[in-house]
Amino acid sequence: MINSQGYEEWPLDAGYLSLAEYAIRLRRREQTAVGLVEICTQNYARTEDRLNAYKTWDGARARAIAAAVDSLLDHGVDLGPLMGLPVSVKDLYGVPGLPVFAGSDERLPEAWQAAGPIVSQLQRQLGIVVGKTHTVEFAFGGLGVNAHWGTPFNPWSPAEHRVPGGSSSGAGVSLVQGSALLALGTDTAGSVRVPASMTGQVGLKTTHGRWSLDGIVPLSSSLDTPGLLARTVEDLAFAFSALDADCKALPTQGPARLRNGLRIGIAENYFWDDVDPSIAEVVETTIERLSGAGAQVVRFKLPHCEEAYEIFRKGGIAASELAAYLDQHFPHKIARLDPVVRARVDSAGQTSSVEYLRRKTVLKRCGADATQVFSDLDVLLSPTVPITPPRLADVDNVTTYGPANMMAMRNTAISNLFGWCALTMPVGLDAHRMPVGLQLMGPPRAEERLIDIALSIESLIGKGLDVLGTADI
Amino acid sequence: MINSQGYEEWPLDAGYLSLAEYAIRLRRREQTAVGLVEICTQNYARTEDRLNAYKTWDGARARAIAAAVDSLLDHGVDLGPLMGLPVSVKDLYGVPGLPVFAGSDERLPEAWQAAGPIVSQLQRQLGIVVGKTHTVEFAFGGLGVNAHWGTPFNPWSPAEHRVPGGSSSGAGVSLVQGSALLALGTDTAGSVRVPASMTGQVGLKTTHGRWSLDGIVPLSSSLDTPGLLARTVEDLAFAFSALDADCKALPTQGPARLRNGLRIGIAENYFWDDVDPSIAEVVETTIERLSGAGAQVVRFKLPHCEEAYEIFRKGGIAASELAAYLDQHFPHKIARLDPVVRARVDSAGQTSSVEYLRRKTVLKRCGADATQVFSDLDVLLSPTVPITPPRLADVDNVTTYGPANMMAMRNTAISNLFGWCALTMPVGLDAHRMPVGLQLMGPPRAEERLIDIALSIESLIGKGLDVLGTADI
Repeated sequence: MINSQGYEEWPLDAGYLSLAEYAIRLRRREQTAVGLVEICTQNYARTEDRLNAYKTWDGARARAIAAAVDSLLDHGVDLGPLMGLPVSVKDLYGVPGLPVFAGSDERLPEAWQAAGPIVSQLQRQLGIVVGKTHTVEFAFGGLGVNAHWGTPFNPWSPAEHRVPGGSSSGAGVSLVQGSALLALGTDTAGSVRVPASMTGQVGLKTTHGRWSLDGIVPLSSSLDTPGLLARTVEDLAFAFSALDADCKALPTQGPARLRNGLRIGIAENYFWDDVDPSIAEVVETTIERLSGAGAQVVRFKLPHCEEAYEIFRKGGIAASELAAYLDQHFPHKIARLDPVVRARVDSAGQTSSVEYLRRKTVLKRCGADATQVFSDLDVLLSPTVPITPPRLADVDNVTTYGPANMMAMRNTAISNLFGWCALTMPVGLDAHRMPVGLQLMGPPRAEERLIDIALSIESLIGKGLDVLGTADI
Repeated sequence: MINSQGYEEWPLDAGYLSLAEYAIRLRRREQTAVGLVEICTQNYARTEDRLNAYKTWDGARARAIAAAVDSLLDHGVDLGPLMGLPVSVKDLYGVPGLPVFAGSDERLPEAWQAAGPIVSQLQRQLGIVVGKTHTVEFAFGGLGVNAHWGTPFNPWSPAEHRVPGGSSSGAGVSLVQGSALLALGTDTAGSVRVPASMTGQVGLKTTHGRWSLDGIVPLSSSLDTPGLLARTVEDLAFAFSALDADCKALPTQGPARLRNGLRIGIAENYFWDDVDPSIAEVVETTIERLSGAGAQVVRFKLPHCEEAYEIFRKGGIAASELAAYLDQHFPHKIARLDPVVRARVDSAGQTSSVEYLRRKTVLKRCGADATQVFSDLDVLLSPTVPITPPRLADVDNVTTYGPANMMAMRNTAISNLFGWCALTMPVGLDAHRMPVGLQLMGPPRAEERLIDIALSIESLIGKGLDVLGTADI
């Protein structure tokens, strides 16, 4: 039981304590930052052998920073909302003092440890990085597997090793594990939302260009986006407004938002093709509840999805961009890549520059056209991932991996290809009792709107664990 | 000897170590923040009985924050240029955890301890507040006297108690004392520049409106400005760029700036009336050196000075604004005010609203007209303070205090009344071997320009102690 095991050390009031509540308790000195790090450390120590969420754990560093935080708070120095809150960081981000592997078999040069704007913003507030979470090698894959360092264990399937989703494969697991209260990930085709969905967490993919990619090992400079994973939409909202310099005030209308003319779009094509029936049912039931609460549901066909997916399926533009990056910075690594990553990098060799540029042009045109649907809609909903998290044993070679990897990212990739932002939140369990995510998609720079709508849905259906029940970890 | 006594604990290389150099040493971990605080504490402990710079000293708080800084730097967390540098704060600013007296005989309500934007910016970088320095009561006076808490001792006059200048009376003394490396002050008619000049330090009065006054006990909402005191122009430049959100890059042309067509204005009227001959000589000699180094010196008459000073002499607009503030917030304090402050507050009772508004209008018109001189000039120079710091015994009653107070602020007040920014830097000693300041005045928001010119002058004539020699403390 998550409540009794995973979070047993956390001083829970009726389920979750929110980040906002921890922030208040830290400031009232009812809770120490060292205490939070200690709980994270205990949860890590008890479960990490099995869950394998982290490439690098540095509890001593976290504890030292937490002690500094406590001393500063004792003396009235308040550096911002994330001060003292434990955060896991995907091992693509530079964090001073912690090595970067980016999922590869050796450390990248130390220059990659330098903090970019997001980690700097986190550090300026003295949010506490507890460690670096596992990632698919160079973030190029949606299932979360890693031949070098092992594939993190999806805690929702205690009996058999199911994948945690990727590429931010350790990020969602770290939250279930209770070793962090917030996780930084990145999303190029679904790499925040897929692991968030598969582990029952909330995940936000920001609009490309809204958050700087400096200080993050690149996969695709055209499509990469930083993102957040959190246990609840409420926590996500708290963290987003703390990290985003331009965040507009987040309204808190609650379920009233649903009654006040919310226009929900459901694309009947593409997003429902080949969806696991039990997943479809959970998502449809949720949509019915939203409709019952007053939201207006519009069913229509979204143009260009199949066209964009066809490009994505052939390697899109990310394969060429990653291949070029590796060729320039780490040519010796190519031969040593995780086989499932290497297969896709190698395929880029057959993509001509003309074809690469054609893909970019086509995607830009498709995105601009498809984005017009938001003139009549506030949000587009779909299942986040159409399949249940596969058993690792079923995707452990390049042949079986490929199709499952494509299916995992099929619904999420559209937002990246079209330039949108998107969010996933847990809405139930599928036939395998694995978490099901509802995806909210919005036009560029509509993060605040998505968070607002997700908050209203969360207030209607409940927070993650209330919705999903509990997992054995 | 300052070098052998005041700074004897500082690891001096050829005189000063700059803030920039300390910042580098802290980051290389060749110097600890705790070590800096310890030196400050030793210098404080050895001299404070006599110098009386601080209303509140909190070495324990400073040490705890310094320990946090060291721990964070040990773990690669860098929060900005001022991190770990000891700063004294005038007791008008709110600093969480430290009481505010504003020079009055009792603590102000705790709400005044809240950090405004400047202290927040300092805290965000973990600059270390060592304590709150003395101020004239409600900052209303230029000599630095305080009947409630005693008048800080000007270290440059060991034999007899000369005033340190005010109203930031403890700020300059704290720098001579070696108990801080940077000081926050405020300036309504000269309250940063007069104490900086009288204690041989560099002082910057910012343009009204450039830096927020939130979190600072007000004297005159129309004229108050936050400001900085530092040991050298180089340090001032470092601190200004660290604290000012809009700071443009500070050029470092050095003496070349003087050759490259720098146009210096000298107003022959007003600023030289009744100037102590030995002060005039030091400033004139400096101007000759600048001219010799290539600067173009233009002598002219600045309009409206006498008209503005006449308004200032009658209480200006500050007396009415302070009286209104006290009447609204602390009516019971009026009867208990320091006699020299009370005399001026009481005088506001005879100023009608019509007269108050007339003064504002006249000053605005005078300022706008006078500012036009900067279309042909880069900077206006004058002695900062026309008189040697008086002996406390000579200004210890309302009758003798009044004229000396007016003389002390005569040259600085013009920048406040005209809406300018201004800077003072030490350029020599007068006949009493007391420091002489050179005032640089510029149009609104020309802080970067003033700092640039001051840097070039400093590189020509040397830094404070090199220019002034040494003081017994």
